[in-house]
Amino acid sequence: MVNSSPGPILLVEDDSNDILLMRRAFRRAQIANPLQVVEDGDAAVAYLSGQGDYADREHYPLPTLVLLDLKLPRRSGLEVLEWLRQQSEVKRLPAVMLTSSRESSDINCAYDLGVNSYLVKPVAFDDLLGMIQTLNMYWIVFNEHPTEYK
Amino acid sequence: MVNSSPGPILLVEDDSNDILLMRRAFRRAQIANPLQVVEDGDAAVAYLSGQGDYADREHYPLPTLVLLDLKLPRRSGLEVLEWLRQQSEVKRLPAVMLTSSRESSDINCAYDLGVNSYLVKPVAFDDLLGMIQTLNMYWIVFNEHPTEYK
Repeated sequence: MVNSSPGPILLVEDDSNDILLMRRAFRRAQIANPLQVVEDGDAAVAYLSGQGDYADREHYPLPTLVLLDLKLPRRSGLEVLEWLRQQSEVKRLPAVMLTSSRESSDINCAYDLGVNSYLVKPVAFDDLLGMIQTLNMYWIVFNEHPTEYK
Repeated sequence: MVNSSPGPILLVEDDSNDILLMRRAFRRAQIANPLQVVEDGDAAVAYLSGQGDYADREHYPLPTLVLLDLKLPRRSGLEVLEWLRQQSEVKRLPAVMLTSSRESSDINCAYDLGVNSYLVKPVAFDDLLGMIQTLNMYWIVFNEHPTEYK
């Protein structure tokens, strides 16, 4: 199947073990899109707005999909999401929460702020791999992405 | 895997051939959630607000997921989506466009109106079946749904 969205997937995650597991799952699932990682909410905002360390869009292209952890240093995943939906340049970017929280208040708040979908990180690696394979098929192979982000 | 969202999937589709193909794909994919079909935009609004023919929530429970065609009699899929996101009772309901249009203006408009995802109907049945299997895994098995719709 044709991969019509070759841009990177931006993972916003501060837990080094979770980052390692995600890199491994991406390799095992043979996902063609590069995995870009930023480790706090401010870095996510800098990446998405192409500022500071991320000013070079050739090295840091806009992602096809953003995966947002909830609890993050400096700015939470929900705050990043709220910021994202207010930006004229990137407001349509598909964003998925990927968190260990199954709290109703977190889930409902994320939908209210315009998240596209909400996933809970599985504990077992094989379950994570299955989720990442499905996420890749759904968002990268099947989903039609906005043609302009603004 | 546990199916945590047993509610129906509401298909809003006016093309009888497409409805037939979707019913067949749901059967072949062995999707546990019942497929409810309404054939125009006004019927979708009536179903989602539990009015008229759809007043009995035991027979017509709120769906887990809404699949919206774009071109529909009486009220378009985009108009149904716009209405949905303004309803305090059901505004968080995950909604996916399922249409034959790959027009940028339709895709971008759907994201602006708060669609969760945008899928283009494949022409070949086997491709449709593959998409429906992935859609089921993603939205019914993995995605965490809002616990309250309002």
